Amino acid sequence: MRVGVLGGGQLARMLALAGYPLGLRFTVLDPAPDACAFPLGEPLVGSYDDRELLARLAAASDVVTYEFENVSAASAAFLAERVPVYPPPQALAHTQDRLTEKRLFEALDIPTAAFAPIAGPADLSPVAARLGLPLVLKTRTSGYDGKGQRVVREQAQLATAWDALGRVPLLAEQWVPFARELSLIAVRGRDGATVCYPLAKNTHREGILRVSIARPDEPLFATAREHVLRLLERLDYVGVLAVEFFQQGDGLLANEYAPRVHNSGHWTIEGAQTSQFENHLRAIAGLPLGATDALGAVAMVNCIGAMPAADAVLAIGGAHLHNYGKAARPGRKVGHVTLRAADDAALREPLNRVCALLGEPLPD
Amino acid sequence: MRVGVLGGGQLARMLALAGYPLGLRFTVLDPAPDACAFPLGEPLVGSYDDRELLARLAAASDVVTYEFENVSAASAAFLAERVPVYPPPQALAHTQDRLTEKRLFEALDIPTAAFAPIAGPADLSPVAARLGLPLVLKTRTSGYDGKGQRVVREQAQLATAWDALGRVPLLAEQWVPFARELSLIAVRGRDGATVCYPLAKNTHREGILRVSIARPDEPLFATAREHVLRLLERLDYVGVLAVEFFQQGDGLLANEYAPRVHNSGHWTIEGAQTSQFENHLRAIAGLPLGATDALGAVAMVNCIGAMPAADAVLAIGGAHLHNYGKAARPGRKVGHVTLRAADDAALREPLNRVCALLGEPLPD
Repeated sequence: MRVGVLGGGQLARMLALAGYPLGLRFTVLDPAPDACAFPLGEPLVGSYDDRELLARLAAASDVVTYEFENVSAASAAFLAERVPVYPPPQALAHTQDRLTEKRLFEALDIPTAAFAPIAGPADLSPVAARLGLPLVLKTRTSGYDGKGQRVVREQAQLATAWDALGRVPLLAEQWVPFARELSLIAVRGRDGATVCYPLAKNTHREGILRVSIARPDEPLFATAREHVLRLLERLDYVGVLAVEFFQQGDGLLANEYAPRVHNSGHWTIEGAQTSQFENHLRAIAGLPLGATDALGAVAMVNCIGAMPAADAVLAIGGAHLHNYGKAARPGRKVGHVTLRAADDAALREPLNRVCALLGEPLPD
Repeated sequence: MRVGVLGGGQLARMLALAGYPLGLRFTVLDPAPDACAFPLGEPLVGSYDDRELLARLAAASDVVTYEFENVSAASAAFLAERVPVYPPPQALAHTQDRLTEKRLFEALDIPTAAFAPIAGPADLSPVAARLGLPLVLKTRTSGYDGKGQRVVREQAQLATAWDALGRVPLLAEQWVPFARELSLIAVRGRDGATVCYPLAKNTHREGILRVSIARPDEPLFATAREHVLRLLERLDYVGVLAVEFFQQGDGLLANEYAPRVHNSGHWTIEGAQTSQFENHLRAIAGLPLGATDALGAVAMVNCIGAMPAADAVLAIGGAHLHNYGKAARPGRKVGHVTLRAADDAALREPLNRVCALLGEPLPD
């Protein structure tokens, strides 16, 4: 089966690595001539909105998927007229606008922080009065890795934030003093079968995910799973979907979802019976889904900005290196390290060593 | 680091899949324009003895390795003058001639079946008288997958076998009524560090490996390991090396070695802490070797001739599919299935199902 991928970054690269053993072949569309997935598939270099390239991608593929959620509705529709596109384009539409996304959670009884739209500067004060301070202002579209958002702690900062965010429609959210961020990665097949990975506990710094630790025995799993299954059904979803939750007390508040394989699931490559990448491909290819159990205690640490020395990483017991083959650049995700150990206690020492090597604070 | 590979079959393909996460890039030389590793590296199509192509391979590589042992001495020497070649070419030289290989085992006190060279037809009867019948006649060079050998049970069959094997120099071996075939896969780094995988119990049919089952608690491991470590030292080896043993009573007889990643180690992809492919690359790249422990009970079943339906394989719990992307052909290795379970008892049922699906008799 021939798979087309919109986007040629590390997610496409890891999809291809997982797909060859299944007998899949890949065509990858990306504007960057040095996209890191290109060595693993047929490259198509150009804009995601170039109709001629999209037509070539469709012709070269039995199914098309994507590695980022900002695929335009027009491109998704153009492709979907020619070839099956999974996850379904309506999953894109809902996540491209933070307000639509939050309203979808609301409609599905998935709890979120209190929120309100900000259409213009006149809405700022009334919304701040209603939701209380501090609050988080986010652009409704195009945000990622902490970009496109501001925490406002005082009334006087509202106008500055409005200017800083580009005077565009915003979503205001109550600021949540959460205990932990947890994410759930779920997979739904073409036949509607679903499986969920154990929850991952995520640590961010400077708006960028740094560490994910699989939590196989997390009591909140059942609640998270119920929420995510409702979302999958509603979207008639096919493929991997990730939902980020904030834990507040014993409850979960949904923050956002990603209709794709997700950084907080990279631990599954070595750490689960079947990786998120393989399961995404099994799903979109109409194959049975694989088991999602964790293989012991597993953690993942991102390499941000530049890769560490390979020999230093691989000298750490149980460490597996993932170098995405990308040029170094501050704040850029260029690789990750996975650690697998028999139990949480045995994971501690190698995790401390990897965090020290990568300049990350030790997670709790 | 850039890795050159002589041979573009499934072993090169699985090396490349293991190598991208380490940040490696691949150039692959193979005479077949449709070599199954070509989609995963820069292809060079042509003869293994084409000096111009070999020079291009050397220029494109920081280190060169190979996926088959019949690389000519001249080509290996030509490459080694230009770029490090691992495993070292002397490991090739010893395994290309079955007589030299057996004499190396003998010199290292590694037990083998009794053997003798057959230079011409006049040697047949005296050697048969000395070793006894039945005996196995093998061409000294170019045999694989059971090709180039004959079991001779009666004096009268000697001349027929001589003709059938092409009237070339032979190795005669005492026929060993062995209980099991076991193989040991070992890895030696550039710094001389060594690690060994658990023994695998192998089942052949029609001269072709069909099933390998990892045996982590095998009492013969220590003996096998001692033998193989002597061999690695003697060859000043770098990379993965596999030795096939016959078990006779409580003893092991070395049959042959392969200076490369080996079919009986494919179970390590999902079934060991670090796969044989990753460890081969770590070794030749001068990186620290990874742990070799098995992750539970693991078995591998080869797909011979044609691939089974992917959905039938993946519906079996714990099954992982490896489709090499090769055209179907009788007797050809086109893929394999790995099974991982908590313990031997839990492995039994899925292993039976995979064997049934692939038309293999159930192993003991």
